[in-house]
Amino acid sequence: MGNAPTCREAILAIKPYIPGKPIEEVQRELGIKDVIKLASNENPLGPSPDAVQALRDASEKVYLYPDGNCYYLKESLAEKLKVSPENLIIGNGTDEILKLLAETYLDSGDEIVMADPSFSEYEFAAKVMGGRAIKVPCRNFRHDLSAMAAAVTTKTKLVFICNPNNPTGTIVGKAALEGFLKEVPPHVLVVMDEAYAEYVTAEHYPDSLEFVRNGMNNVIVLRTFSKIYGLAGLRVGYGVAASQIVNDVNRVREPFNVNLMAQAAAIAALKDEAHVGKSLEMNNEGKKYLYNQFEALNLKYVPTEANFIFVNIEKDSREVFKELMKKGVIVRTGDIFGYKDFIRVTIGTQRQNEQFIWALKEVLNEV
Amino acid sequence: MGNAPTCREAILAIKPYIPGKPIEEVQRELGIKDVIKLASNENPLGPSPDAVQALRDASEKVYLYPDGNCYYLKESLAEKLKVSPENLIIGNGTDEILKLLAETYLDSGDEIVMADPSFSEYEFAAKVMGGRAIKVPCRNFRHDLSAMAAAVTTKTKLVFICNPNNPTGTIVGKAALEGFLKEVPPHVLVVMDEAYAEYVTAEHYPDSLEFVRNGMNNVIVLRTFSKIYGLAGLRVGYGVAASQIVNDVNRVREPFNVNLMAQAAAIAALKDEAHVGKSLEMNNEGKKYLYNQFEALNLKYVPTEANFIFVNIEKDSREVFKELMKKGVIVRTGDIFGYKDFIRVTIGTQRQNEQFIWALKEVLNEV
Repeated sequence: MGNAPTCREAILAIKPYIPGKPIEEVQRELGIKDVIKLASNENPLGPSPDAVQALRDASEKVYLYPDGNCYYLKESLAEKLKVSPENLIIGNGTDEILKLLAETYLDSGDEIVMADPSFSEYEFAAKVMGGRAIKVPCRNFRHDLSAMAAAVTTKTKLVFICNPNNPTGTIVGKAALEGFLKEVPPHVLVVMDEAYAEYVTAEHYPDSLEFVRNGMNNVIVLRTFSKIYGLAGLRVGYGVAASQIVNDVNRVREPFNVNLMAQAAAIAALKDEAHVGKSLEMNNEGKKYLYNQFEALNLKYVPTEANFIFVNIEKDSREVFKELMKKGVIVRTGDIFGYKDFIRVTIGTQRQNEQFIWALKEVLNEV
Repeated sequence: MGNAPTCREAILAIKPYIPGKPIEEVQRELGIKDVIKLASNENPLGPSPDAVQALRDASEKVYLYPDGNCYYLKESLAEKLKVSPENLIIGNGTDEILKLLAETYLDSGDEIVMADPSFSEYEFAAKVMGGRAIKVPCRNFRHDLSAMAAAVTTKTKLVFICNPNNPTGTIVGKAALEGFLKEVPPHVLVVMDEAYAEYVTAEHYPDSLEFVRNGMNNVIVLRTFSKIYGLAGLRVGYGVAASQIVNDVNRVREPFNVNLMAQAAAIAALKDEAHVGKSLEMNNEGKKYLYNQFEALNLKYVPTEANFIFVNIEKDSREVFKELMKKGVIVRTGDIFGYKDFIRVTIGTQRQNEQFIWALKEVLNEV
């Protein structure tokens, strides 16, 4: 008994997440106006105009609690994804669903298996519950599925496959995934984090929703409205799984976790397929442009299936980050993923990509 | 090892929260159009027009992640509350802060102390972490502080004081609270849930922020934008505490827990003191009207310091609830709080209050 409240020992080891620097913060700190953010894999085209209209229409209703069941959003998603509303759980961003999964399945001492490098929030969620993350190194920037299967023990409750992987942009293919799912014991829940699914162009990318449609009960697929749907600011993501999984996760969900504006905008964004198409097309063009520029600069990059590129700049990324920022470009340093000479850059609009390349050339000469 | 993922045993006992029925759901189920909701203690005047304008202005920016630090909202709150931004933590509604507190302080087997009846989410949060809620019966619908102090053991980590109390509307006064805080050992964090603080008219209501301003490090005060500020749909609440508490709770907070629209609207709502004043005045008038009507109907009610009234209708509240709903009025049944003959009704606009009283009279004659 101390003389002040003390937090749980389990959470002392949690390292705070380092978010992409907000534009306003850079403007405030450096006193510069023209800032572009290529750090958080947002959709540079912005939200669907239909979503913006839905927000305006809903703005006077915000005094009411949101629908805690997300009835209409689930109906829309179920129709689009060809699953039942009972297969859906909606979260305050996929971030929240990650934490809900940890709260549902991890007791102290339990393990999760994840790739390294991959999205840091899997480990965060595990640590909140006193769990331990077993990190399996990537091979050639890709998930090493056989090593991940081998890392599963009787303590393993969750395996995370980030597909496409953040920060590398690589994917796990259909055949490899099917083989992996056969190896994983049925008590282990396989979490397919598909935040960037809509950007994938590779034909061997798995339709993992098919596992759920076929009644497989140890897979959950996570998707988000934060990326291609351009609604990161609203916080809305979802999970698709067998209803038993959804019911269990719902036990730990707060009743009003998804705000009213997010629900309204997500429904509208989902219908605007033209906006998604345009966003994908722009991403594909930007990808080609940046590949060409990196090659001209003799920089090695990891070919991506997402809306960002992990590129080896062969200099200390924190230094490069600082200098790029002074030129109004925010990127993500690789050190937080264990690759100190890499940066992760979001594919922007053509104008943003050009500004980034201009700034990068200048900085690489200076640093 | 089963043949499917199994959830933690600790969460099996969680009873799902029963939210106030959404208007749309009642319209859908009963096929009626004119429905008023007096079930969730929302502000019937709606949001501040300034908040609505802020939402419209922000609607095209939703493709960007929100500021994970809530910089500008914290600045506004700090100025208004006369605390430092380091004393503030912002949540996806106060609901989220309750869960964050449990995640920060409760290991399996730890205890919380709370009143009964009181807000059910305290127990929910405790159960998620394998904690146990010690519920101390109210006396005369009020927190029994000496019994609550006596219920504190070496396992107690959190004590919840809901002030005004939901669902009874009663308050803990300044002198009683000060006495209680002297009795509680310093390792116990006292959570003052003041969601309805802005509605209180009693002069002996404590200024609990003064404890934080004076450096007391085992008190956290929770407030919300969901009630008098009319932003329930956006999900934004906050905690005020010593920076050490805030830092510890921040360990378990997801990086982008508070959406961008909520931050923009909350800043605007906070400045619109006229709207808060008008809301308070309407509540005071509605309170008088409803007291008079209840007295005329010979119904006993608990005098309230909040925007709802707990009233003894001397009939099965679930029956009355169903019949009221058919007449387009949604209230909250008392059975969920252990008072099956009570209903909790939100004080609405004059028109809504009149519609409620009309419906109640009809129903009490029928049931």
